[in-house]
Amino acid sequence: MIIGVLGGGQLGRMLALAGIPLGLRFRFLDPDRSCPAAELGDLVVAQYDDELALARFVEGVHAVTYEFENVPAAAAKWLSAHAPVFPPQGALATAQDRLNEKTCFRSLGIATPEFAPVDTRDELLAAVARIGLPSVLKTRRFGYDGKGQAVLRTMADVETAWQTLGQPRAGQQLRADLILEQFVPFARELSILGVRSRDGSMRFYPPVENHHSRGILSRSIAPAPNAQAAASVLQPAAQRVMETLGYVGVLAIEFFDLGNGTFMANEMAPRVHNSGHWTIEGSACSQFENHMRAVAGMPLGAPASRGHSIMLNIIGAEPDPGILALDGVHVHMYGKSPRAGRKLGHLTICQLAPEAAMALARRAELLLRNC
Amino acid sequence: MIIGVLGGGQLGRMLALAGIPLGLRFRFLDPDRSCPAAELGDLVVAQYDDELALARFVEGVHAVTYEFENVPAAAAKWLSAHAPVFPPQGALATAQDRLNEKTCFRSLGIATPEFAPVDTRDELLAAVARIGLPSVLKTRRFGYDGKGQAVLRTMADVETAWQTLGQPRAGQQLRADLILEQFVPFARELSILGVRSRDGSMRFYPPVENHHSRGILSRSIAPAPNAQAAASVLQPAAQRVMETLGYVGVLAIEFFDLGNGTFMANEMAPRVHNSGHWTIEGSACSQFENHMRAVAGMPLGAPASRGHSIMLNIIGAEPDPGILALDGVHVHMYGKSPRAGRKLGHLTICQLAPEAAMALARRAELLLRNC
Repeated sequence: MIIGVLGGGQLGRMLALAGIPLGLRFRFLDPDRSCPAAELGDLVVAQYDDELALARFVEGVHAVTYEFENVPAAAAKWLSAHAPVFPPQGALATAQDRLNEKTCFRSLGIATPEFAPVDTRDELLAAVARIGLPSVLKTRRFGYDGKGQAVLRTMADVETAWQTLGQPRAGQQLRADLILEQFVPFARELSILGVRSRDGSMRFYPPVENHHSRGILSRSIAPAPNAQAAASVLQPAAQRVMETLGYVGVLAIEFFDLGNGTFMANEMAPRVHNSGHWTIEGSACSQFENHMRAVAGMPLGAPASRGHSIMLNIIGAEPDPGILALDGVHVHMYGKSPRAGRKLGHLTICQLAPEAAMALARRAELLLRNC
Repeated sequence: MIIGVLGGGQLGRMLALAGIPLGLRFRFLDPDRSCPAAELGDLVVAQYDDELALARFVEGVHAVTYEFENVPAAAAKWLSAHAPVFPPQGALATAQDRLNEKTCFRSLGIATPEFAPVDTRDELLAAVARIGLPSVLKTRRFGYDGKGQAVLRTMADVETAWQTLGQPRAGQQLRADLILEQFVPFARELSILGVRSRDGSMRFYPPVENHHSRGILSRSIAPAPNAQAAASVLQPAAQRVMETLGYVGVLAIEFFDLGNGTFMANEMAPRVHNSGHWTIEGSACSQFENHMRAVAGMPLGAPASRGHSIMLNIIGAEPDPGILALDGVHVHMYGKSPRAGRKLGHLTICQLAPEAAMALARRAELLLRNC
């Protein structure tokens, strides 16, 4: 069975590494000839809206999936006339737009921070008046890793952010296309990953605790400590979202844990997610394998965690080579050239006891040279 | 770093799946365009003695390794003038020939069954008279999975075996090139896998218990039950062999456990080995990753087992697809077309308790259709 993957980044690379042992073969579409997944299957080098390239890409493919959510909706629609596309277009459309996303959460009874759409300066001022400061102004679409957003603490910030984010961008509609969100004083960020198969069965990984550095995920702890209450809220929430969207594949939802028993959904990713990388060693069946099983119409695998895992991202620079000498540290490089702020790989530490995992993570962190 | 691998079978495939996350890239040499490793790197399609192809294969490669021991010695020698070849040629020459292999074991004080070289019918009769029946007549070279050998229980068997195995084979020297080995009434077969790095450090996986069906490995249990005494013999034996051969990479040695505290070395494989496939899920650092670390000059990883594992080979036919629905069963397909007696893939079951692993293995075996 040949699976087409839109995008040939590290997520595509890890999808293939998990899918090949299942007997799947891969074809990627990516504008970059030397993308991380290039060595793991056929590669069609093209832009995502190049219809001739899409036709070559989909020829003979049994199912299509994607490794990032900014796939042009038109491309996904065109492809879905030629092969099944999972997750489905509706999920993509919902997840591509922060306003749709939060509206979906609310409609399913899932708490979110207050929010308001902002297309004009007047709407921004009205939204600030209603939601208050601090709050966060974000682009509705195409944001990632903290890009396309600004925290507003004072009215001066409001003006600055409007100057930066409020101008209609090239190739987009003639409106600002922003969303203002309440700044929630959260105790920690959690994420939940679920997977739904073509026949509607679902499995859930335990909630994960995520730490960021300069807007980029730097560390995930799995399972999240003291997360029984969280699991009882997050898992049913993910289940409702997947059922509503007729979802197939892995879905990630990030939540703010307010520390008082309240959990607010922040955003979702209709794909495998950085906060699920620990599952390669830390669970019986990784997020990558489960995504491929779902897309290929196979039964799902067990998401139960094997011990306690800590995932550390390798960002900007390669780690000290001595990191390979630390027993129990699993190194995953993505084949990318170093550049400040770029995710080059990740480490997973997996131990039976959470204290042992934390101690080893501290030793590993000393050998990272993140920048 | 680009690693050249002679052979593109399933071992090459799993070497690449383990090496790519380390940032390594792969080039394979194999006569079969659609070999299992083809999708995981560049592929030079050629015979192993094609010098023009070897030149293309080695161009720009940082180190060369192999995934089967029947690499022509001349090819390994030619290549070693152009790139470091690991394991070294001496190890290959020793392991390619059962007589050299057993002589090496004996010289290091490692017990083996009695044996005698057999090049003529008279030598066979003399060897049978000395070693006795039952015994096993084997080709010295190019045997695998029980091929090229015959058990001799009666003098009639001796004649039959001589008719079958005693004729000089095409392309070989004008002698029978056989070895007669004492048939050892062993209680079980064990194997030990060790890995040695370029700087001489060594790590060892726990001994594994192996079960065969029609000459082909069908099941490995890791760690082998009640194997403390075995480990104290097998591990130092593997260590002596690796040190003597100046070994780099993973080495497997199969032993007969006579059940009375005696362990006799049967044969060695200068490569990753089927009885080590469990290490992908069952240990912190798999045999494939450790082999690649050794060949690439990296520090070795931890061989400690994670729980109890059972590996079942998928032979001849694909299993019932429902096998994927068994939680905790890891499926590894090699991308080969089904054919009776052919290794198509393997399963690994990994559980904290040995009883749980055995129970799950029994359920999985019901879904195999081996033939």
